[in-house]
Amino acid sequence: MQNIAKQAGDLLEQLRAERPLVQNITNFVSMDIAANVLMALGAAPAMVHAPQEAADFAKIAHALVVNIGTLSQDFLEGGEAAATASHMLGHPWVLDPVGVGGSPYRNAAVQRLLRHRPTVIRGNASEIMSVAKVVGLSGDDARPRGVDSAHTTDQALAMAQHLARHHSCTVAATGATDLITDGERIVRLANGHVLMTRVTAVGCALSAVVAAFCALTEDAFEATVSALAIYGVVGEMAAERAQSPGSYRVAFIDQLDTVTPADIAQRLKVL
Amino acid sequence: MQNIAKQAGDLLEQLRAERPLVQNITNFVSMDIAANVLMALGAAPAMVHAPQEAADFAKIAHALVVNIGTLSQDFLEGGEAAATASHMLGHPWVLDPVGVGGSPYRNAAVQRLLRHRPTVIRGNASEIMSVAKVVGLSGDDARPRGVDSAHTTDQALAMAQHLARHHSCTVAATGATDLITDGERIVRLANGHVLMTRVTAVGCALSAVVAAFCALTEDAFEATVSALAIYGVVGEMAAERAQSPGSYRVAFIDQLDTVTPADIAQRLKVL
Amino acid sequence: MQNIAKQAGDLLEQLRAERPLVQNITNFVSMDIAANVLMALGAAPAMVHAPQEAADFAKIAHALVVNIGTLSQDFLEGGEAAATASHMLGHPWVLDPVGVGGSPYRNAAVQRLLRHRPTVIRGNASEIMSVAKVVGLSGDDARPRGVDSAHTTDQALAMAQHLARHHSCTVAATGATDLITDGERIVRLANGHVLMTRVTAVGCALSAVVAAFCALTEDAFEATVSALAIYGVVGEMAAERAQSPGSYRVAFIDQLDTVTPADIAQRLKVL
Repeated sequence: MQNIAKQAGDLLEQLRAERPLVQNITNFVSMDIAANVLMALGAAPAMVHAPQEAADFAKIAHALVVNIGTLSQDFLEGGEAAATASHMLGHPWVLDPVGVGGSPYRNAAVQRLLRHRPTVIRGNASEIMSVAKVVGLSGDDARPRGVDSAHTTDQALAMAQHLARHHSCTVAATGATDLITDGERIVRLANGHVLMTRVTAVGCALSAVVAAFCALTEDAFEATVSALAIYGVVGEMAAERAQSPGSYRVAFIDQLDTVTPADIAQRLKVL
Repeated sequence: MQNIAKQAGDLLEQLRAERPLVQNITNFVSMDIAANVLMALGAAPAMVHAPQEAADFAKIAHALVVNIGTLSQDFLEGGEAAATASHMLGHPWVLDPVGVGGSPYRNAAVQRLLRHRPTVIRGNASEIMSVAKVVGLSGDDARPRGVDSAHTTDQALAMAQHLARHHSCTVAATGATDLITDGERIVRLANGHVLMTRVTAVGCALSAVVAAFCALTEDAFEATVSALAIYGVVGEMAAERAQSPGSYRVAFIDQLDTVTPADIAQRLKVL
Repeated sequence: MQNIAKQAGDLLEQLRAERPLVQNITNFVSMDIAANVLMALGAAPAMVHAPQEAADFAKIAHALVVNIGTLSQDFLEGGEAAATASHMLGHPWVLDPVGVGGSPYRNAAVQRLLRHRPTVIRGNASEIMSVAKVVGLSGDDARPRGVDSAHTTDQALAMAQHLARHHSCTVAATGATDLITDGERIVRLANGHVLMTRVTAVGCALSAVVAAFCALTEDAFEATVSALAIYGVVGEMAAERAQSPGSYRVAFIDQLDTVTPADIAQRLKVL
């Protein structure tokens, strides 16, 4: 799929030229790595979540990510304020429903955030299936096999498509194979490395990267595919330089800085 | 002490096979390193502290750590909710009383948390002595020599034993020599490296590791001894690969991933 | 300027001998790196911000930094409590007005904090100009050219001087050239490296370092100049060992541990 690699490479260069500002309302564990991932890639982070000012910064930022990892009342209120503002202004925003399904509180938070119409929902397969269940999408072909178990992204496909259609958004389920759909189009990517799951919040940081790419183009599906394509290639290249999670994290951030469109073209695996 | 090394090695392999889920209600400074330490070793972290859902996750998790480092009302309420739930369910939980003695607020928090019967209390010598003082244990042989001063773990021995007996728990005072007691049994370990004190929150992350080991066996004393044994050996091995705190942190996390039972057997120093 | 380098080297040795305790009321993104930077350099961090105990720790700590990066009501109340206590006790405290100008909430927070008379205000050029504007200092020669735009520190000079005089404090505007003034004296330093801006919260950690140096001497201007001199030289030396942001962060922290007065003497560029 020459086109996907080409597009990802082009958007990567555009990102480095335009340096979009991404507002992060994200969990405490991911703040350091999310900010550093954005900066290494070439975007700019703003970590602002207080309800008193979250909407003010949504006006300044080019895109927003709301991640419910270490959920609290303040973060939820700030997330809703920023998401509404972003939606009104036509700025893209990404929902990362970390741990949805784990508690009624978390499910209710996702329901509230969905009202503000995320541009993209990014999670692992189980999270995507839980989101679909939370909003009442559970047709026979898409029933989750238990919220806490691990699922493959292909098990999440039907639910991801439902979700994308019902909420007019792009849905990305990431895992060994990444799956991206806007309800009609479907792309599967097969890069990445298992070490990405041995460093905390690498997935959370990806959601911030998706937001950064959504700031570059109207087509959120293409932006999301490009973000995941680059992230997966970077994850794979970093694993050639470091084999344990401490040094892998360092190599991963370095590789975000040095990855080129040629690397994407050469390595991207579209299924 | 062949037995301690053997047991630690066996539990290490068990941990990597079972991948226990550890709920962390911990300070902001330690979240990143605690999650990464758990993942590098082979356990799984869940960072969930909101009072609205802390007890829900305590049911899913195999063990819990409550660390009062950057204490706040929400964390304390979440910590109490999760600790009660864990106690009711028979899940082990570890109290890390960071900075106890530094303010009345912190002392009151420790008193409240102790009501929920921690399985293990892990702190430095001064913190263990302060906890004992906070709960009114201050016999002549165990009076702290000033809360803010540094103590050796042997100075904390009598208080640690009192505390373990009065609260039916295991107490671990860590330092140049680590001391673990359940009121009857006492073990002293002498691995580790001074660079462990030059990286923030390495001690906090240890408390999470103790929780992970407590998920593997009924005997919390043995679990704690094993966790400290492995951590000390890892700290020592990492110092052979890095001599300054930035690269030491990376080497330490890498070493958690690669340490073997044979390393423990070869290097463990039991006094 | 042999004198500045000499003084910085002397204070560096004093810092490593005295290990001042710095209380950090700082944003979530910077907590890990701020604590590690302080520890690598030789100081000791205390990360305590709850309104219930912030003032208690201000009594124990030798200096305080209040950074409004991820501002919230609790942090602001804790910051005010600690700042008042520090001011009363004659302990130095540093204000880092991250993102001031970005929202009315943030501007109001800066106004409230300024009442507690910071010893030093440290920010980038735009932040210093925004602080001046927030407190009503906007003479013709010092009008900001737009809060969100980047400014050089020389553009901030007049405002920095106003601010220093009106608030009887030292003002440090950092950037490609660092500028420090107490209203009368002015020093410009030209070390550092662009990679310092590619790692999150390196500037926030600098404010903590300024606080640590202010704990060593009555002359806050000299302390600030020394802190910035050392930090810039460290940033430059680290860039000789690492060229991408992941490994640069590691090298930077390592270099804080190993930098010597001789390095300062040899490399410091005073304009």
